Amino acid sequence: MRLQGVGVSTGVGYGPAYVISDAIPEPPAGERHDGDAEAEQDRAAQAVERVAEDLELRGSKAGGQARDVLGALAMMARDPGLAVEIKDLVATGLSAPRAIFEAFQKYRDLLAAAGGYLGERAADLDDIRDRAVAVLTGRRMPGVPAEPADGARPYVLVARDLAPADTALLTPAIVAAFVTEDGGPTSHTAILARAMGVPAVVACHDALSLTGDLLVDGGSGLVVQEPASDEVSSVRQADASRRALLEAATGPGRTADGHPVPLLANVGGPADLELALRNGAEGVGLYRTEFLFLDRAEAPTAAEQAEAYRAVLEAFPDGKVVVRTLDAGADKPLAFLPPPGEEPNPALGVRGLRMFRIFPDIMSGQLGALAEAAAGLTAQVQVMAPMVATAHEAAWFAAACRTAGLREAGVMIEVPAAALRSDDLAAEVDFLSIGTNDLAQYTFAADRQLGTLSKLQNAWQPALLDMIAAAVGSHGKPCGVCGEAAADPAMACVLVGLGVTSLSMAAPALPAVRAALAGHTREQCRAAARAARAATTADQAREAARGMLPGLGDLGL
Amino acid sequence: MRLQGVGVSTGVGYGPAYVISDAIPEPPAGERHDGDAEAEQDRAAQAVERVAEDLELRGSKAGGQARDVLGALAMMARDPGLAVEIKDLVATGLSAPRAIFEAFQKYRDLLAAAGGYLGERAADLDDIRDRAVAVLTGRRMPGVPAEPADGARPYVLVARDLAPADTALLTPAIVAAFVTEDGGPTSHTAILARAMGVPAVVACHDALSLTGDLLVDGGSGLVVQEPASDEVSSVRQADASRRALLEAATGPGRTADGHPVPLLANVGGPADLELALRNGAEGVGLYRTEFLFLDRAEAPTAAEQAEAYRAVLEAFPDGKVVVRTLDAGADKPLAFLPPPGEEPNPALGVRGLRMFRIFPDIMSGQLGALAEAAAGLTAQVQVMAPMVATAHEAAWFAAACRTAGLREAGVMIEVPAAALRSDDLAAEVDFLSIGTNDLAQYTFAADRQLGTLSKLQNAWQPALLDMIAAAVGSHGKPCGVCGEAAADPAMACVLVGLGVTSLSMAAPALPAVRAALAGHTREQCRAAARAARAATTADQAREAARGMLPGLGDLGL
Repeated sequence: MRLQGVGVSTGVGYGPAYVISDAIPEPPAGERHDGDAEAEQDRAAQAVERVAEDLELRGSKAGGQARDVLGALAMMARDPGLAVEIKDLVATGLSAPRAIFEAFQKYRDLLAAAGGYLGERAADLDDIRDRAVAVLTGRRMPGVPAEPADGARPYVLVARDLAPADTALLTPAIVAAFVTEDGGPTSHTAILARAMGVPAVVACHDALSLTGDLLVDGGSGLVVQEPASDEVSSVRQADASRRALLEAATGPGRTADGHPVPLLANVGGPADLELALRNGAEGVGLYRTEFLFLDRAEAPTAAEQAEAYRAVLEAFPDGKVVVRTLDAGADKPLAFLPPPGEEPNPALGVRGLRMFRIFPDIMSGQLGALAEAAAGLTAQVQVMAPMVATAHEAAWFAAACRTAGLREAGVMIEVPAAALRSDDLAAEVDFLSIGTNDLAQYTFAADRQLGTLSKLQNAWQPALLDMIAAAVGSHGKPCGVCGEAAADPAMACVLVGLGVTSLSMAAPALPAVRAALAGHTREQCRAAARAARAATTADQAREAARGMLPGLGDLGL
Repeated sequence: MRLQGVGVSTGVGYGPAYVISDAIPEPPAGERHDGDAEAEQDRAAQAVERVAEDLELRGSKAGGQARDVLGALAMMARDPGLAVEIKDLVATGLSAPRAIFEAFQKYRDLLAAAGGYLGERAADLDDIRDRAVAVLTGRRMPGVPAEPADGARPYVLVARDLAPADTALLTPAIVAAFVTEDGGPTSHTAILARAMGVPAVVACHDALSLTGDLLVDGGSGLVVQEPASDEVSSVRQADASRRALLEAATGPGRTADGHPVPLLANVGGPADLELALRNGAEGVGLYRTEFLFLDRAEAPTAAEQAEAYRAVLEAFPDGKVVVRTLDAGADKPLAFLPPPGEEPNPALGVRGLRMFRIFPDIMSGQLGALAEAAAGLTAQVQVMAPMVATAHEAAWFAAACRTAGLREAGVMIEVPAAALRSDDLAAEVDFLSIGTNDLAQYTFAADRQLGTLSKLQNAWQPALLDMIAAAVGSHGKPCGVCGEAAADPAMACVLVGLGVTSLSMAAPALPAVRAALAGHTREQCRAAARAARAATTADQAREAARGMLPGLGDLGL
C-alpha cells in the first residue's frame, strides 16, 4: 500500500507501524454475564481500579502538568457513586463491560446536557470508560507507548491526530516518524515533529489501516507499507543528498547579498541546547521559561531559576539569548497563579503579562533571578514579556526590567493591537519579537488547538503578512519572529523581505532556513513579500512568493 | 450616604434598593445536629430537592437557553452520589447545612483539581450548595427577582456585578436603575442598561452596603441613599432638561454640515420595533436572528422564519433592514448545530459563518426564508454574515445570497483579518458592517465576558480605531458600525470621522447620537478621529477627541 499525505517535517523515517486506533467499540446492549453476579462485580471493580492505577502510573512517569491531569482522571475513575452504579447494573444481570459502559454513559450525559464547556469533562469520562472496557475485553488501553517497538527499533506512530497529552513522553529514540489522517501544516503533530526533528506526514487518508513496516518521506508526503529494500535505500539516499546540500550552508544567517539575519533557536530549557548548537544556532531567540514553573505548588526560588537561566546563557557566550518571561494561563495553568475567575475562553483571558499584573512578585522574582544569572556572563541577555497589548503595558514591563537591573527589555507581538500600534510599543522597549502562532490565532479568531480551523492558522494568509508588516512598522527597533512561520524556508525569506531582523525556530529547521536565505538576495525577499501580500488567499500568496524565490525546489524546500 | 461611581447609561432612577449580596457564608466546621439523624437527613434531602425544583421553575419561566442551563443544574442537585454522601455525613452527626457543604466540597475539589475548564462546573456546584444552605439557614436564595419590589415601584438593583443569566427576566418595569461595585463602560451591566434604556452606575465602591431608597444618576455616576425629596426633584429636573435638548434633534442622522449618516437600530426581533420607531430609527442596522433559533430541537421552518422577518421589514417600508444570519456557536450553542468537536475557546471556534460551512442547509434555509419575506415589500433588505475572516468566505456567502435571490449581501467585520483585508472582502460583497464588540475582543485578545480585562474592551483604545480605519479601507463600499461603540455620542462622531457610513445601536441611544452628530461638522469629526488615533491610551484618545468636539458637555453627553 502506498498513501499520499502532506509532508510537514522533512526527513525519512522507517520502522514498524504503531497504530493508535479509534474508539473502543461499545459493548453490545443487553449483554449479560453468566450468572455469578458477585464475581462479575469484582471483575468490573478490578478493571476500573486497574485503569485508575495505570493513569496514576503514566502521570507520575510524565511528571509536570500531565501528572495532575492524569491524577484527576484516576480520582474520577474511583468515584464511589460510579462504583455503586456499576455494581447495581451488574446485579440486574448486565455484563461488566456493559454495566461500566452504561454507568459512565449516565454520568457523561448529565455533563453533556449541562452544555457549555462540560463536554471536556464528558470526554474524560469516555476515556476512562474506554480504558476499563478495553481491560475487560482484552484490548490494549489507549495511549502512546513510551518505549521503542520490539524493544529496539523506533516505531512509526500512526493516529487520527495527536494531542499534546499523547505525546508527552516521546523522543526521536522512540518514534521514527509520524503519520496522521487529520491535521495540517500547523497542527500539533506538525509542530511537534519539526521541534523533534522527526519526519511527519499529515492529512494522510486511510493511514489508520496501515500495518507492518512503513517508509515515511516527510518531504514528499509519501508513506509506503512494506517497501522493497531498494526503495528504502533510494529514498534514504535522496534525503541524505538533500541534507548534505543544506549542511553545505554554514555560518551565521545572511542573504545572498550578505544582509545578516541572525538565526536563533527556540528552546525550553538546558536540555534543548545541544540540538541548537549542533544546528548552528547563533543564539536563542525564544527561551520559554515555563518548564521551571510547571508541576509545582509554589514558584521556584530565585537561586533555582538563576541556575537554569545560567545554563542557557553559558551555552552562547558570544550570542544573544532572548528570555520570555513566564507565559502562564490559557492552556498552561499554574497552581500558584490562578486566574482571577472562571474563564470561558482562556486564550482570551488572563495569561502572560496579564497574570504578572495580578502577581507582580512572581515577575520581579523572575527578573531578579535573570539579572543574577546574567551577572558576569558575556551572553547578550534580552528579556521579553508575552501577551502585551498596549504601550502602557510595555512601559510597565520595561520599567520592571530596569528596576531588576536588566538592560534590554522587549515585548512579544502576538496580540493584533500590539502589531497595529508597534510604533507606540517600540518607543517603550528595546526590541519586539513576533509570535506568529498566537498572532494568527487572534488575527483570524481561530483557535490554534482546533484542526477544523487550521486553514486560518496558515502563516501564508495575506492578513497575517499584513499584520507582520504592521509589527515591523516604522520604529526601526529590532523586530524578530519566533513563531512557527520562521521555520518555513520560503516564509523565512518573505519575513526578511517584510523587514524582520532575526528568525528563531525549532533547531532542526535552522539548516534549511539558512540555505534558503543564502540562496536569495534581500531584494528577492522583498519582491517575494510584495507578491505574497498582493495575493488574496494563502495558497496564492505561497505560490506567488515562491515564484520570486527560484532555487528552493533544488534544495528540496 | 452618597457614593460616586461611573455613569454608563444616562437617566435618573429612584427606587428601593434590592441588593444581591455576596456568597452565602460557610456553615461552621464541625457543626452538629441535635441527635435525630433521620430527621436531619430528611431536612437535607428536602432542601436539595427544593433547590432543584426552584432551578427548574426559574428555567421554565425564562425559557430558551436558560431553561437548559438551569435544568442541567437541577439534575446535578439530584445526583444520587451526592445524596448518599450527604446522608452519610449527617449519620456521622454533622448538621444538614454542614453535611451539604462538605459533600459538595468534595465533588467540587475533584473537579477543580482536574484543572482546565472544569472550574466552570465547580462553580455550578457552589451555586447549588449555596442555594441549599440558604434554604436550611433561612436565607434568601441567590437570584434576581422578576417583579417590582413592594409590588409596585421598580427597584434599584445593586450587585457586585451582573451576569447575563441573572438578568434574563428583567424589564424597565421591574428595574429603575442598576448599580454595581465592579464593571466598566463595556461590562454586561452597562450594555444591558443602555439597551433597556435604564440608568446605570458601575465601579461604585461600597455599593453593596446601600439600603433603603436610592437615587441614581446614570450621567454623573452619583448614587444617593435616602435622598431629600428636593434633591430627587432637582436631579430629575436636570435630566428632563437634558432629554428635552436631545429630543429637539429629530429627523434623519446628519452632521452639522448636512452629511447624512443613517441612524439605525439594533433589534433582536419584532418586540424591539416599537422602541426603535419611538427613537426615530431610520431602519435596522443589525437584526439578530438568533432568537428564532434558540430553545429548539430543530431549525424553525422557512414559513415560520419568513413571518418573523416580514414583521421587521414591514416596520420600515422606506428604510433599510440589515439582517445578520444566524450567529450560532461560542456563547450561543444550538442543539441542531453542534460544533464539530470540543472547543477549549468557543469564541475562537466554529461559530457564525464557520458553522454554515458545516451546515449549509441551515444557511440556505435562512436565506430562502428571507427572500420569501422580502418579496413584495418595499424595505431595502441587506443580509450579512458574522465571523467572516477571508475574502474567500465572503465570496462563498455572497454567492449563496444571490442563489437565494437576495440582492444585497455583506459581511460583518469583527475578525481582525477581515478588517486588514477589507478591500479584498469588499470586492466580493455590497457592504461591510463593523461589529466593534467582537472586533475589540479579538484585537486585544481579551474576552468580552471578563470584567478583569474590561480596560482592553474599550472602543477608545487607539488600536481599535486603527482597526476600524482599516475596515473602512479604500474600497468605497458602504461600511457601517453596529457595535456598542456607535452608542457613545463622542465615539459616534469619531466613527463618522473615520469614514463610517452608518451607525446602528440600541434604540435608546439614538437621540443622543443624533444630537451629537447634528452639533458637529464632518471636518470636526475627522479632526476628532485624527486626534484620537494620535493618542497612545484610551483615556487620552477620548479626551483628545472630545477636545475637538465642543458642545458635547452642554448636551450632557
